[in-house]
Amino acid sequence: MRKVYVIGIGAGDPDHITVQAVQAMNRVDVFFVIDKGHLKEDLAGLRAELLSRHVDHGRYRVVEAADPERDRSADAYRDAVVDWQDRRAEIYERMIAEELDDDQSGAFLVWGDPSLYDGTLRLLDRIAVRSAVPFEVESIPGISSVQALAAAHRLILNRIGRPVLITTGRRLAAGMPTDIDDVVVMLDGGAAFAELPDTDVDIYWGAYVGSHDEVLVSGNLQEVKQEIVRVRAEQRERKGWIMDTYLLRRRPEER
Amino acid sequence: MRKVYVIGIGAGDPDHITVQAVQAMNRVDVFFVIDKGHLKEDLAGLRAELLSRHVDHGRYRVVEAADPERDRSADAYRDAVVDWQDRRAEIYERMIAEELDDDQSGAFLVWGDPSLYDGTLRLLDRIAVRSAVPFEVESIPGISSVQALAAAHRLILNRIGRPVLITTGRRLAAGMPTDIDDVVVMLDGGAAFAELPDTDVDIYWGAYVGSHDEVLVSGNLQEVKQEIVRVRAEQRERKGWIMDTYLLRRRPEER
Repeated sequence: MRKVYVIGIGAGDPDHITVQAVQAMNRVDVFFVIDKGHLKEDLAGLRAELLSRHVDHGRYRVVEAADPERDRSADAYRDAVVDWQDRRAEIYERMIAEELDDDQSGAFLVWGDPSLYDGTLRLLDRIAVRSAVPFEVESIPGISSVQALAAAHRLILNRIGRPVLITTGRRLAAGMPTDIDDVVVMLDGGAAFAELPDTDVDIYWGAYVGSHDEVLVSGNLQEVKQEIVRVRAEQRERKGWIMDTYLLRRRPEER
Repeated sequence: MRKVYVIGIGAGDPDHITVQAVQAMNRVDVFFVIDKGHLKEDLAGLRAELLSRHVDHGRYRVVEAADPERDRSADAYRDAVVDWQDRRAEIYERMIAEELDDDQSGAFLVWGDPSLYDGTLRLLDRIAVRSAVPFEVESIPGISSVQALAAAHRLILNRIGRPVLITTGRRLAAGMPTDIDDVVVMLDGGAAFAELPDTDVDIYWGAYVGSHDEVLVSGNLQEVKQEIVRVRAEQRERKGWIMDTYLLRRRPEER
């Protein structure tokens, strides 16, 4: 049976790769690559470095496909994502059916960890139930940008016996949760943090965390939010894309 | 200046180790080991395997200390943890001051990721502000049991555009949050899931995830909870300790 690996390659530092990921990569015949526009150059560079440093056999192929256009202006965010994923599923299905022989292995290398805000496993599940070509899926964990952020700031995400919420910029726009004091935000296309009125919240922010381009800012949210907005705009302009993450941490009440 | 690494070694599979962690381990003069009772044998085995497979230089030393007794019966959970961490801090401070020369590096190898429900960085912060011996801290991320659980079940923790809560068994005892449908539970010393009345929740449970002892159970919470309670008790009896994690996922409402 065909096998498809979804391999987390970490958050931008090629040394985030695990021994498990390296072993899986060495069993792969075809690496599937989705061209993600602005991200393409950096992803391609990281992928090429990982393959040349860690894959011993020379018989693998790299197959590229363009990512379908995504309607980012849509009001119905979820529907737009679902529609875009339908089109993406068709591309993945075709690649698996046409590029892999019966006994071959393919792989998608994904930023961070396949289990956190990455849709590859979901797409493969969807394809698996309808595909004429059966395949098996294996997920290989990788260091996520959340972990790289925490390491860069030398943070523990939770406080003793307390929870951590991982959420999106879109949801944060409704405000800090009242009952959770530690909130990690991913996928903030805007700058939802800058709209929060809270004066008792610290922010630990980072972009391209783990890579050579890493930028970090931390401090009281109200005091540093304008600096982060400025740095964010500069960096996005400079590189053409930005990937940032942050932890919002409410200060304990004075007793 | 002395340097202290806190290195995440993954969730039980020696191949979870990252290239970054291997590189750091090769710069370490002294590995500090805290004897964690029942866990000792397994941790020692994993550590020995990692050192022998990945550390090239032969000049490192391993220094062991016993973990202070912890009052697990205390009603005031947080106070008990803080007191226990005070005593632990003394042990760490003494090891760093006495076992490392000025220009040497030490390391604590921790299960999973230093940023998630591990107290080592917190202890080092506390020591750093009072210690007569200055030292620098570097955190190296590792694959957490949450990620290993997700990979084993081939799960994505979040649903599209939705948040994930990471919390403790103690907090889950108050019930599933009403506004969050995906909840990861760590540190559930009891079996808080078994007390939940929810009929629309699936559980994805795993113990010793990523290791040879890995056990997985998943299904509707009410249908499989007794099986998990039974397997948990059996495994704890067999190995003397258990490390388990689970995702609770509320099913979408019928439309």
